[in-house]
Amino acid sequence: MTAPSYDDSNVFAKILRGELPAERLYEDEHTLVIMDIMPRGDGHCLVIPKAPARNILDVEPDSLSAVMATTQKMARAVIKAFSADGVTIQQFNESAGGQVVFHLHVHVIPRFDGVALKPHTGTMEDMGVIKANAEKIRAAL
Amino acid sequence: MTAPSYDDSNVFAKILRGELPAERLYEDEHTLVIMDIMPRGDGHCLVIPKAPARNILDVEPDSLSAVMATTQKMARAVIKAFSADGVTIQQFNESAGGQVVFHLHVHVIPRFDGVALKPHTGTMEDMGVIKANAEKIRAAL
Repeated sequence: MTAPSYDDSNVFAKILRGELPAERLYEDEHTLVIMDIMPRGDGHCLVIPKAPARNILDVEPDSLSAVMATTQKMARAVIKAFSADGVTIQQFNESAGGQVVFHLHVHVIPRFDGVALKPHTGTMEDMGVIKANAEKIRAAL
Repeated sequence: MTAPSYDDSNVFAKILRGELPAERLYEDEHTLVIMDIMPRGDGHCLVIPKAPARNILDVEPDSLSAVMATTQKMARAVIKAFSADGVTIQQFNESAGGQVVFHLHVHVIPRFDGVALKPHTGTMEDMGVIKANAEKIRAAL
């Protein structure tokens, strides 16, 4: 497989350029964190690099390191925000790998004993719920 | 949730100490890659840090960066080794998050159009298959 090159018309590139809204949780020089609007569980958020990268196959190592440092920060924050029992990290590459938006992103999903994940890219969540969960995560950061 | 501290009696710690066998694919100063013996798909391998860490909640940032650099290397290698269509990366934290062995590990799973993942921690694979897939990945590195 030869991966196609980066296409900056994807929704995360638009969010990074301010052309689309998002519930923003955290931002630093190299990364942005937003709420997933089709969450697999309460508090599901996404870490994305600011530098263009299609996925793990083409991302620059420094950008990947920054994404993972932010992922660790968010994993700790969601545990605290929701008194979660664990956290699941997922990162999908190419359609066969589960990728839907072709700008690298890492899923951070708080987990609770006995609660299964909802389907990937399932139902759009109520925005009131998204905003309330976002507030809890911001407070935990 | 307060995570328990690292317990060095886990199977990956034993593999790192050479007390248990493993099908080793790659090793550098900070990381080791082994085949998953209960693969969710052909070529499923695991990246582990050599430094003790329970999971993403307690790992040192430099160790996490090294793990992800090796994860990128393995993602590219499995695509090449199996002519895969994509790759799925998963990393589980605490039992509620899907973690079974309490030494940080990143799952690298080659993916193919139309082929679903097998269950997590499902069936033990035939060792002949594991060894043959390991050879393909080593050749692609």
